[in-house]
Amino acid sequence: MSDSERRARGLRKFHEVYGGALPEPPAGTLDFFDLMLEQLFGEVWTRPALSQRDRRLLIIGAIVALGERDTFGIQVRSALRNGELSAAQCREVVIQLAQYAGYPRVAGLVSVVEGIIAEAGAS
Amino acid sequence: MSDSERRARGLRKFHEVYGGALPEPPAGTLDFFDLMLEQLFGEVWTRPALSQRDRRLLIIGAIVALGERDTFGIQVRSALRNGELSAAQCREVVIQLAQYAGYPRVAGLVSVVEGIIAEAGAS
Amino acid sequence: MSDSERRARGLRKFHEVYGGALPEPPAGTLDFFDLMLEQLFGEVWTRPALSQRDRRLLIIGAIVALGERDTFGIQVRSALRNGELSAAQCREVVIQLAQYAGYPRVAGLVSVVEGIIAEAGAS
Amino acid sequence: MSDSERRARGLRKFHEVYGGALPEPPAGTLDFFDLMLEQLFGEVWTRPALSQRDRRLLIIGAIVALGERDTFGIQVRSALRNGELSAAQCREVVIQLAQYAGYPRVAGLVSVVEGIIAEAGAS
Amino acid sequence: MSDSERRARGLRKFHEVYGGALPEPPAGTLDFFDLMLEQLFGEVWTRPALSQRDRRLLIIGAIVALGERDTFGIQVRSALRNGELSAAQCREVVIQLAQYAGYPRVAGLVSVVEGIIAEAGAS
Amino acid sequence: MSDSERRARGLRKFHEVYGGALPEPPAGTLDFFDLMLEQLFGEVWTRPALSQRDRRLLIIGAIVALGERDTFGIQVRSALRNGELSAAQCREVVIQLAQYAGYPRVAGLVSVVEGIIAEAGAS
Repeated sequence: MSDSERRARGLRKFHEVYGGALPEPPAGTLDFFDLMLEQLFGEVWTRPALSQRDRRLLIIGAIVALGERDTFGIQVRSALRNGELSAAQCREVVIQLAQYAGYPRVAGLVSVVEGIIAEAGAS
Repeated sequence: MSDSERRARGLRKFHEVYGGALPEPPAGTLDFFDLMLEQLFGEVWTRPALSQRDRRLLIIGAIVALGERDTFGIQVRSALRNGELSAAQCREVVIQLAQYAGYPRVAGLVSVVEGIIAEAGAS
Repeated sequence: MSDSERRARGLRKFHEVYGGALPEPPAGTLDFFDLMLEQLFGEVWTRPALSQRDRRLLIIGAIVALGERDTFGIQVRSALRNGELSAAQCREVVIQLAQYAGYPRVAGLVSVVEGIIAEAGAS
Repeated sequence: MSDSERRARGLRKFHEVYGGALPEPPAGTLDFFDLMLEQLFGEVWTRPALSQRDRRLLIIGAIVALGERDTFGIQVRSALRNGELSAAQCREVVIQLAQYAGYPRVAGLVSVVEGIIAEAGAS
Repeated sequence: MSDSERRARGLRKFHEVYGGALPEPPAGTLDFFDLMLEQLFGEVWTRPALSQRDRRLLIIGAIVALGERDTFGIQVRSALRNGELSAAQCREVVIQLAQYAGYPRVAGLVSVVEGIIAEAGAS
Repeated sequence: MSDSERRARGLRKFHEVYGGALPEPPAGTLDFFDLMLEQLFGEVWTRPALSQRDRRLLIIGAIVALGERDTFGIQVRSALRNGELSAAQCREVVIQLAQYAGYPRVAGLVSVVEGIIAEAGAS
């Protein structure tokens, strides 16, 4: 697969993963985004063994444990837009992870989830 | 729900979650295990909004990010026994998480997964 | 103990722990808060073996290591209001933890502590 | 204070903190230990605003959140030897921290605590 | 070395390390800053075995893994001012660390680096 | 660049990075290793903006903060074999990171470094 094919494939996957919740990184401006699209989206997320929803659940668990609130919000918003998680399931993610990642990690995520659900007009 | 009902319910869930991969914590000896069974297994894992497999994927993501190798092994073994993840999917979990939790976190997990797959006679 | 008793007990403990530094989570709106009150405040913080101040010191150590600045601020404000820690002791917490959690973790906490002390009119 | 005074003071504090649970680092062989004794033990642990027991609780919280099992064992053994924590309190430390640092972090600590209590002939 | 010499030496090193990117902590107001200057800057950063640039790379790696964005910005700004890292090298730091600390940790650092490079009129 | 070229390039870089301290991952057996060689070694470590030694210092910082002791040992052994770090500099790495990653993280690394230095017959 050529590098431009990899990039095109990565870009396609990027949009599937974020469902429009994140703007497309501008092509050819920063190597960081080129590598991320080609490697992470073009060659990891596109692999067949696990569904996109499965991969999402795995990385949401990691992101909560790392305490990266902004990235958490992007993932929840994308999952909700894509229909991978319902509003009730987004709320449940925080409940399930509370005693695994610890209350100090999830305390601030409840309002993040509620904000995303309200913004989407879901309930 | 009485405390003994909660404990019985937690114990039932505990066995469903671990599928025999972990011995039952002895009742009434350590408060730590009693609370874990009553609260975490009796009142969190039993909630309906997410399936047991969904909850597993979420916490595997968190456990990998935390770098807890033994606990990771127990979860993978349980998921394989329960048929929640195939051997190929257990391997894919490590691939998907590598660039999210970082290579230093997952480097040692490849052999953990291979050991569990070999032990189970899966492939 | 019934669930409503557990909740009442958890709510009482919640107010003792935060000393008015945190508003009461609205009852029956989000399962997250219900579980937190019933389990964490109703059944963990209320246990006898360690004092409330001892539990506070333990979790402040954990919160600093996790790098959760907002939660740290809430705990310090509560400890100061409750008389569990004096202003000098709040400052000392950051000094003691600097070389255990690392300077990048505590660098931003000095101004958090000073802000809380100033706000309380302590010194 | 001269460097040799600082070192002597640090060494004295080192023995108070560990209560014989850790051998004395050999003087003048590794700069790492010299700095640790002079700075951390000679100039931080010796400060007056918090008691040695208070400092212990703070760093145990941090150590559990970091997931450093060996260091956790050393601290618990020292606290038990020094009479800073009873056997019941050592057990309670793990219970209090479970939902703050997360179950994957504390799951392996229960047996560490039980081993130390058994070794000390406490209960 | 007397305490005032240590402090003077630490202050000199502090300014070399930050290259004017951080204001001088006011002397004698907070013990936290006095200890940081005397110990960390006066006695660690001044040691000969590694260059200041080497020490910077080591701690930038640690700071990214810890996820401390503000502290990361201060280090990058200082390295750029001091000529320790070129603009291209600051960008490369984030690329090299992406798969070691994980994408959730570095995702927000790209714009931090670009902001610092723009502010410095570098490219 | 074709996938086989990428793999060959990654393998060459892998051996330069580890200097013989790590066996070559068997080709075509596990996708995890194929991706790691092609992406991380073939396309990240081979980039020009930072030297191999610079990249090593960055990731050692990250690995220490993550607390991955085995991976830390591999990196130190490789750096020593490659002449990127002298024995004195390996020791200094732990000293510089102690107050950034925290003493609980580095406490166990002193003996790792000493073991590697002894094994190499360095001093």
